[in-house]
Amino acid sequence: MTSPRVCVAPADFPRSPATDAEITAAIVSGGGQRAELADADALVWVDFTDVAGLRQALASAPQVRWVQLVTAGVDVMRPVLDAQRQWTSGKGLYSEPIAEYVVAGLLSSFRSIPAYVRDRSWTVQPTRTLLGAKVTVIGGGGIGSAVVRLLQPWRCQITVVRRSPRPMPGTVAVVGEDELKDAVSQADAVVLALALTPDNVGILDAGVLAAMPSTAWLVNVARGPHVVTDDLVAALQQGAIAGAVLDVTDPEPLPADHPLWQLDNCLITPHTSCPGEIAKPYLLARIADNVRRFGAGEELDGLVDAQAGY
Amino acid sequence: MTSPRVCVAPADFPRSPATDAEITAAIVSGGGQRAELADADALVWVDFTDVAGLRQALASAPQVRWVQLVTAGVDVMRPVLDAQRQWTSGKGLYSEPIAEYVVAGLLSSFRSIPAYVRDRSWTVQPTRTLLGAKVTVIGGGGIGSAVVRLLQPWRCQITVVRRSPRPMPGTVAVVGEDELKDAVSQADAVVLALALTPDNVGILDAGVLAAMPSTAWLVNVARGPHVVTDDLVAALQQGAIAGAVLDVTDPEPLPADHPLWQLDNCLITPHTSCPGEIAKPYLLARIADNVRRFGAGEELDGLVDAQAGY
Repeated sequence: MTSPRVCVAPADFPRSPATDAEITAAIVSGGGQRAELADADALVWVDFTDVAGLRQALASAPQVRWVQLVTAGVDVMRPVLDAQRQWTSGKGLYSEPIAEYVVAGLLSSFRSIPAYVRDRSWTVQPTRTLLGAKVTVIGGGGIGSAVVRLLQPWRCQITVVRRSPRPMPGTVAVVGEDELKDAVSQADAVVLALALTPDNVGILDAGVLAAMPSTAWLVNVARGPHVVTDDLVAALQQGAIAGAVLDVTDPEPLPADHPLWQLDNCLITPHTSCPGEIAKPYLLARIADNVRRFGAGEELDGLVDAQAGY
Repeated sequence: MTSPRVCVAPADFPRSPATDAEITAAIVSGGGQRAELADADALVWVDFTDVAGLRQALASAPQVRWVQLVTAGVDVMRPVLDAQRQWTSGKGLYSEPIAEYVVAGLLSSFRSIPAYVRDRSWTVQPTRTLLGAKVTVIGGGGIGSAVVRLLQPWRCQITVVRRSPRPMPGTVAVVGEDELKDAVSQADAVVLALALTPDNVGILDAGVLAAMPSTAWLVNVARGPHVVTDDLVAALQQGAIAGAVLDVTDPEPLPADHPLWQLDNCLITPHTSCPGEIAKPYLLARIADNVRRFGAGEELDGLVDAQAGY
C-alpha cells in the first residue's frame, strides 16, 4: 500500500468537469497526494481534445504508469494510447445521465416540445406517446443498457443492435450489425449509443435512413461521425424521417451557417448529454476510487483497451 | 343481458378524441347498438365544455340512465351531474400519458431544451439531472401514482401531498395538505396532479410559491384555477422559482397578450397532456367495456361521485 503521487494537467483547464482543488480532494480521499508531473506515478488529464499536449506531457514523464482520462469515449485520444502504461476513462460512468438525455430527447420530440417553445400561442401541435413505442438502440454498452433501464416503465419494445448479440433484459431482441436496416425498419425511434471505432464511421447513412419509417426519430449521443451528416440533412429536409436530436455532430462544434441549424425538426445540443456539472460527482468518485485501487495494487475501474481504442 | 341503446352526441363534434364511427364500433364491440337520443338508454357525451347542451339533451331524454363523459376531470360538467342516473368519465384512464407529459416537462426543463430550441448556435446552457432529484407531487390519485411509477428508474425522492395521507409505494413520504409549504420547501420540482374542487382553488398561491426553492420547477397537469395566475407570473418574473410547465392555465385558452407567453422560463401547452390522438385507444376501450358492463348489469368503470364532483 503506497500513497500514489498524482499530477493533474493541464492546470486549471477551464472546461474541466471539476476544479483542480476538487480533483486534489478526490486524490487525497483515495489515499493519494498531488504531485508535479516530473514526480508523478499517475496523471489525471482533464483536457478532452489536446492529444499533442498529452503526448508531450508523457514524453517528458515516462515514469507515469497510469493515465486517467475524463471522458467516456476516448476516440479522440486514440493516437496517444499505448501499452506502456494503464489507461482509464470515464467509461460506463456517465451512462445514466446520458441515457436520461436520450429519454429527454425522445419525450421532447414525441410531445412536440420544440414546436410548443416556438409557437407562443394556444395552438395544438400533433403529439404522440412513447408508451409502448418501438425503440431501436444501436450499441449495447453502458449507455444502451441504461436507456433500456430508464425506459422500463414505458413498456417500449426495445431492439438492441450490437457487434456481439447476446440477450439483454428488458429488450425484445438483440441483433447483429448486419441486421441494422431490418432493425430500424419498424422503429418509432432509433438511438445511437456506441463507441466510435474506425469500422463504424458513417454507420448511419442514406441507406439506413431510408430504411427508417418516415415517422421515426433519431437520437445521437454517440459521436458525430457515426452519422453521414449530408445524408441526415437530406433526410430531414425531405421528411424521410420525422426528426433528429443530436448531442454530437460532424463537424463539432457545428458551424453557425450549417444547414442543420435551419431545420425545425432537428434539435442540437453542444455535446452536453453529460455536462460538467452533472459529470462532476461521478468523475470525482472514480478518481478517488482508482487512486485507492492504484495504491493498493488492485485492478483499475474503466480500463481502456489501447488496442481496441475504447 | 340486454343490448344497450347508446346515443353519441353532439354529432360529429370536431374535437372529439374519436370519430362517431369509431365510437359506434366500440359500442357495437361492447354488445350495444347506436340509438337516437329519444330511444337511448345511455349517452356518450363527447363535448368537453358544453354544459348547457348536455343539460338540454338530458331534459329531452329523461330515460337515459347512464352518461359517459370523455375527460378525466369533470369539474366543468359539475353543474349538470345528478343522482338520477349513473355518470362515468375518463377517470384514471389517461393517467399514464399525462404522467408521461409530466416527465417530458421535467426532463425538458432540467435539460434546458427550450433554451436549446431558441438558441440556434453551439452554446452550452446550464443543465441539471432529474436522477435522484426531490419531487413533490400534489395529488395522490391516478396521475400522481403514474408519475411515481414512471420516475422509479430515476430514484427520485418523491413526496406526495394529498387530502388523506396513506403510504404509497415508491415515495419517501405522503403528507396532508396542511403540510404543503413544508413539502415544497426542499423540492427540485413540484407537480400539480389533483382534481379541482371548490376547496382547492388557488391552492398554489404566493405563499406556496415563496416556500419553494428558487431553483424549483412547477408542472401543472391539473387545472388552471389550482394556481393563482398573477402570483405565478410574479414568481416567474422575479426568479422566485426556476420556471413552470403549464398544460392548463387560468383563463383557458390563455389570451395571446397574457404575460405568461412572454416568459422564457414558462412552457405552455394548450391542455394537451393527453390529446385526442393519444387518448383515443384508451377512451374507446373504456366505452366498449362500460357498454358491456351496462348490458350485463355490472358496476361501471370510472364512476363519478356526483356529490363530490370527481
